[in-house]
Amino acid sequence: MSPFTGSASRTEEWRHLRLRLDAGVATVTLARPDKLNALTFGAYADLRDLLPELARDGSVRALVLGGEGRGFCSGGDVDEIIGATLAMDAGQLLDFNRMTGQTVRALRECPFPVIAAVHGVAAGAGAVLALAADFRVADPTARFAFLFTRVGLSGGDMGAAYLLPRVVGLGHATRLLMLGDTVRAAEAERIGLISQLTDEGQAAGAAQALARRLAEGPALAHAQTKALLTAELDMPLAASVELDAATQALLMNSADYAEFHAAFTEKRPPKWRGR
Amino acid sequence: MSPFTGSASRTEEWRHLRLRLDAGVATVTLARPDKLNALTFGAYADLRDLLPELARDGSVRALVLGGEGRGFCSGGDVDEIIGATLAMDAGQLLDFNRMTGQTVRALRECPFPVIAAVHGVAAGAGAVLALAADFRVADPTARFAFLFTRVGLSGGDMGAAYLLPRVVGLGHATRLLMLGDTVRAAEAERIGLISQLTDEGQAAGAAQALARRLAEGPALAHAQTKALLTAELDMPLAASVELDAATQALLMNSADYAEFHAAFTEKRPPKWRGR
Amino acid sequence: MSPFTGSASRTEEWRHLRLRLDAGVATVTLARPDKLNALTFGAYADLRDLLPELARDGSVRALVLGGEGRGFCSGGDVDEIIGATLAMDAGQLLDFNRMTGQTVRALRECPFPVIAAVHGVAAGAGAVLALAADFRVADPTARFAFLFTRVGLSGGDMGAAYLLPRVVGLGHATRLLMLGDTVRAAEAERIGLISQLTDEGQAAGAAQALARRLAEGPALAHAQTKALLTAELDMPLAASVELDAATQALLMNSADYAEFHAAFTEKRPPKWRGR
Repeated sequence: MSPFTGSASRTEEWRHLRLRLDAGVATVTLARPDKLNALTFGAYADLRDLLPELARDGSVRALVLGGEGRGFCSGGDVDEIIGATLAMDAGQLLDFNRMTGQTVRALRECPFPVIAAVHGVAAGAGAVLALAADFRVADPTARFAFLFTRVGLSGGDMGAAYLLPRVVGLGHATRLLMLGDTVRAAEAERIGLISQLTDEGQAAGAAQALARRLAEGPALAHAQTKALLTAELDMPLAASVELDAATQALLMNSADYAEFHAAFTEKRPPKWRGR
Repeated sequence: MSPFTGSASRTEEWRHLRLRLDAGVATVTLARPDKLNALTFGAYADLRDLLPELARDGSVRALVLGGEGRGFCSGGDVDEIIGATLAMDAGQLLDFNRMTGQTVRALRECPFPVIAAVHGVAAGAGAVLALAADFRVADPTARFAFLFTRVGLSGGDMGAAYLLPRVVGLGHATRLLMLGDTVRAAEAERIGLISQLTDEGQAAGAAQALARRLAEGPALAHAQTKALLTAELDMPLAASVELDAATQALLMNSADYAEFHAAFTEKRPPKWRGR
Repeated sequence: MSPFTGSASRTEEWRHLRLRLDAGVATVTLARPDKLNALTFGAYADLRDLLPELARDGSVRALVLGGEGRGFCSGGDVDEIIGATLAMDAGQLLDFNRMTGQTVRALRECPFPVIAAVHGVAAGAGAVLALAADFRVADPTARFAFLFTRVGLSGGDMGAAYLLPRVVGLGHATRLLMLGDTVRAAEAERIGLISQLTDEGQAAGAAQALARRLAEGPALAHAQTKALLTAELDMPLAASVELDAATQALLMNSADYAEFHAAFTEKRPPKWRGR
């Protein structure tokens, strides 16, 4: 247990998603297959709360986010979310939209890589959750649609207008967010939206294999790589170079760096400890 | 008419470009076909002034920018602009270059999507006008050339050194701006510079169809998508997520969002009102 | 000689790399072919010091960076760097990592374009040196690997977590920096990491030809294009447009701009002077 543990207790049961922990790999499954895993208030809240809790726990080294059934996630539930928001006042609307944004910040800011395993539909908020992951491992059935304008809302939802231009460039991002058209797997791979394209039905397995590889590797190095990629999108070059220097100076005192050198010298594979 | 109308009168006649207004779609045509639509001081000034005037008017929901004749726009006129600037003093030179930059800011900051319909040459300032649009709909004759270094000037002209890396990445942008080489349609599509590639001779028609689709859709949602894409290029993640939350909270009170839900419930297409 | 020359003397001999100067083109060769040009403390220090010295000199208009033998550069030497850093204290580690970062800043901030001529391996710090160049001219044997996590360090090294997302997008950059996998030439070209792909064995020659073209062209325009591309990655749109305006106003008083107009009028090729 981390020495930086206070009074907060661990959540006993995540009621709006399924969590499995296995030797450093957390697997989070959106599990409303009869609704194409449409998100509810509870699912957003659980995603917002789960990631910081796993981060505090300290034992997770990689996380897979996937969907049960025919697709990844069809986005916010039309009845349970759109219908409900029509009855909300300004303060409630802001609270709701801040919560959805916090799930994206949690995905970008947690200290372990997140792998979205995408098959079938990734639409609306589901597309943004995949976008906020570090890796999108997808099979040929994957289709992304940033549907927000189709329901009369801004394409800039949950940070999409920040993230998408930085992943696929401003031209493609404008087209996808403004029109809400469906992007199939082949185009998504071509424009850089997919990290790894698998055979059909293999996205979940390939995502697990990648998570296992990451969890068994130099996890502190991975965590810092993610932190620097996230931070340096918002930093100038000179400050980025300084942040890199301080980070490497720190990691050059890590057990894994010494282990690499020992293993190299002894001509054996390194035994990573993640610290 | 907008309630935020003051004393300023509408321009009676745009003498340096052609403007057509049709049910929410503005079509702006560069119309010096004998000169490949080379830009003059007057054309820059009209572009700078027209876009804010259309924005104030409030009735435009999409704008198409195209060129008459054999190409889109060959850039600043060698005689009327390069020749004239050689006789200018420092203050005049700064005024001229600020004006050209203001046309790009006007394209990025106007509250409706702009579609460049590109066929044939889009060179120099013409390439930057296309780059500043939200969509580039182009046919296979389209060719882009950021010619500035070819005349002894900086490739960073009218925001090109800001925009192009954010559209095609720093590597391609450096090559295009430093060398001024011509990029043909196939490469432009491959690197993300073209939003939609049409059959030959179809760019203008496809641009009109896209503008019509946008104008008949949820125009306030489109306007906010554009505003957020533009703003969040210059914002960090946390602030972007907050801006998205405030924007969606606002739009969740819009007529179009309620209309989407009503139409979905009644299993009919929504009737968008753009507010 | 530049009027802005003070007391500092020119370095007599660069002992850790090879420098050739030829009519405005500097060619810097990493020349430890028996070690795949692995970098040493001395090589980093020479790169850090050489570029500002060439910048002060004022006669260099383009620089080619290449490697002798079977590849471009295999990165930091395992024995001479990784081994040595294991014995360093915190201050020394920070000094070392700041030095490596300074080589990247020097490449981005020197007032002439830098062309990396890449064949064979460009790994670790070698991949970042290529990334920091303005052009990557590579042949089909080129392979890039950002190996940092493979030795237990952060993928954000020497500004890589800043630069790579801006060249290939955040998705590809995350994959390359987090995993350290090898990217072969075909993929590198597809994602925008290669500026020009040559036939096998032709990278060095093509890089020289490009450097010659740049050196014989409007060098001040090239220098300003580079400076603006570098600066505007870290600037908002409005400020970028203003910087462009001031830069063009300055260059419209340059000899090369007047020469372009004279040559155009006289229907002859311009004779560029680079000022």
